[in-house]
Amino acid sequence: MEEVSFLNGKTRLYGIVGDPIEQVRSPEMVTHELHSRQINAVLLPIHVAADAFERVMPHILSIRNLDGLIFTIPFKSRALHLAKHTGPQAIAVGAINALARRADGTWAGEIFDGLGCVEGFRRRGLSFANARVMLIGLGGAGSAICAAVAGQKPHTLRMFDLDDARCRRMAEMVRQISPTTDIQIGKPDVRGMDILLNASPVGMLGDPRLPIDVSHLPPGLIVFDAIVKPEQTPLLALAEKSGSKVVRGREMMRGQIAKIVDYFIEQIRAPDR
Amino acid sequence: MEEVSFLNGKTRLYGIVGDPIEQVRSPEMVTHELHSRQINAVLLPIHVAADAFERVMPHILSIRNLDGLIFTIPFKSRALHLAKHTGPQAIAVGAINALARRADGTWAGEIFDGLGCVEGFRRRGLSFANARVMLIGLGGAGSAICAAVAGQKPHTLRMFDLDDARCRRMAEMVRQISPTTDIQIGKPDVRGMDILLNASPVGMLGDPRLPIDVSHLPPGLIVFDAIVKPEQTPLLALAEKSGSKVVRGREMMRGQIAKIVDYFIEQIRAPDR
Repeated sequence: MEEVSFLNGKTRLYGIVGDPIEQVRSPEMVTHELHSRQINAVLLPIHVAADAFERVMPHILSIRNLDGLIFTIPFKSRALHLAKHTGPQAIAVGAINALARRADGTWAGEIFDGLGCVEGFRRRGLSFANARVMLIGLGGAGSAICAAVAGQKPHTLRMFDLDDARCRRMAEMVRQISPTTDIQIGKPDVRGMDILLNASPVGMLGDPRLPIDVSHLPPGLIVFDAIVKPEQTPLLALAEKSGSKVVRGREMMRGQIAKIVDYFIEQIRAPDR
Repeated sequence: MEEVSFLNGKTRLYGIVGDPIEQVRSPEMVTHELHSRQINAVLLPIHVAADAFERVMPHILSIRNLDGLIFTIPFKSRALHLAKHTGPQAIAVGAINALARRADGTWAGEIFDGLGCVEGFRRRGLSFANARVMLIGLGGAGSAICAAVAGQKPHTLRMFDLDDARCRRMAEMVRQISPTTDIQIGKPDVRGMDILLNASPVGMLGDPRLPIDVSHLPPGLIVFDAIVKPEQTPLLALAEKSGSKVVRGREMMRGQIAKIVDYFIEQIRAPDR
């Protein structure tokens, strides 16, 4: 009988929950990652209306062959309360983007935006340990990147965000995660820095601006941009022109997907801890 | 980036809801049918615990990119109340196995087990109109087959089920659908019959018995068995040995899947009727 090969009654379900949903890229990428590990599972787009989230989610979690969810805009903070167990990144940031079923039926949550950035660097042989890091933007992705980079014990972490209160909160978070790091709050500045991270939306979707006011960058600098679309942002173009090493948003995305699938697999094997 | 081709953020969702779920065949078959019609959609197994059905289903229906569901054991009757609009077969049988979203967001339900049987016959150039039909078994599938066959206005419809009350209810249903049909209730008997339909579980999964007490069948008889596993039941083996024409359970299943996908497509285009 004519049939597809990637779905059957035993297929385990994962989903990405967002509102809107059509723009997400996890279904094709995470499903590929699951299949490359020989797991009979798919990750679906699940469109839950923003005003129905708290009401609907407990029932979606009761679907017995659902093993995990990813959360995207606008649900990362609101999903936190769905997790009975929360990882250190989730606690620091106050949000999750992955929720995984454990063998005992409880749910564990963690946020992987920042860990994906660290993993993207690691795959390129680059490390934040003892490095001098300038981070621009402390919103959803930025605060997660801040927490994950702090976990790598950088020498210096200089932070900038238009919201001062947010800067101070993040500085306090970094102090708790990595007491030895030199924490600075202030305007974007790459003098004396090893790594520049952009987690602000400046340069996204045709925005021609740079997140930092310079005409060239030091050639030894490593420059990362969390922006996925476009792949080549104005910042990365300048970095390449200046001879800097470049790490792209999609490397963070790839790193994050691998880490999330690791987490899904690891949690389903964790009955009670 | 590595990715699969059959899932993305725009993929529409369908599901089959049952408890248990691992044995279902709709995910691979209906998804194939959807893809063969160039529709970006998948049909997933959705395992809802029997005791949670009424509580969980309204929330699953609130998922905005979900366009339809199929129901299997033990939910076909309990799913009826989820449909705002019900088709004639569903009303006659008191159950649905397909629930389709309309453009206005309401849900329409119908049962296709019987219509799938009629469609399987039609694809072989066979018709129930004016035929003399013996139907054995009036359970879930049997009552749906009874309603669909009655809709084809057979000359005679003789019915047998171990449950007498059920036979009388079905006889009354046939009387309403097809007043001109000669309705008989009584033991399985193929004398004078054109078509024998088995919708009882006799012969399923290694059961060596026949649903009718005969040692051969008339060569002109058309013999259908609703059983899908095994493909070759004792009844069909006897029919082939007797030179009868045989229609298999999977032909009904194939006919049903085509009819359900037709229904899904037709309903999503039906805003208000």
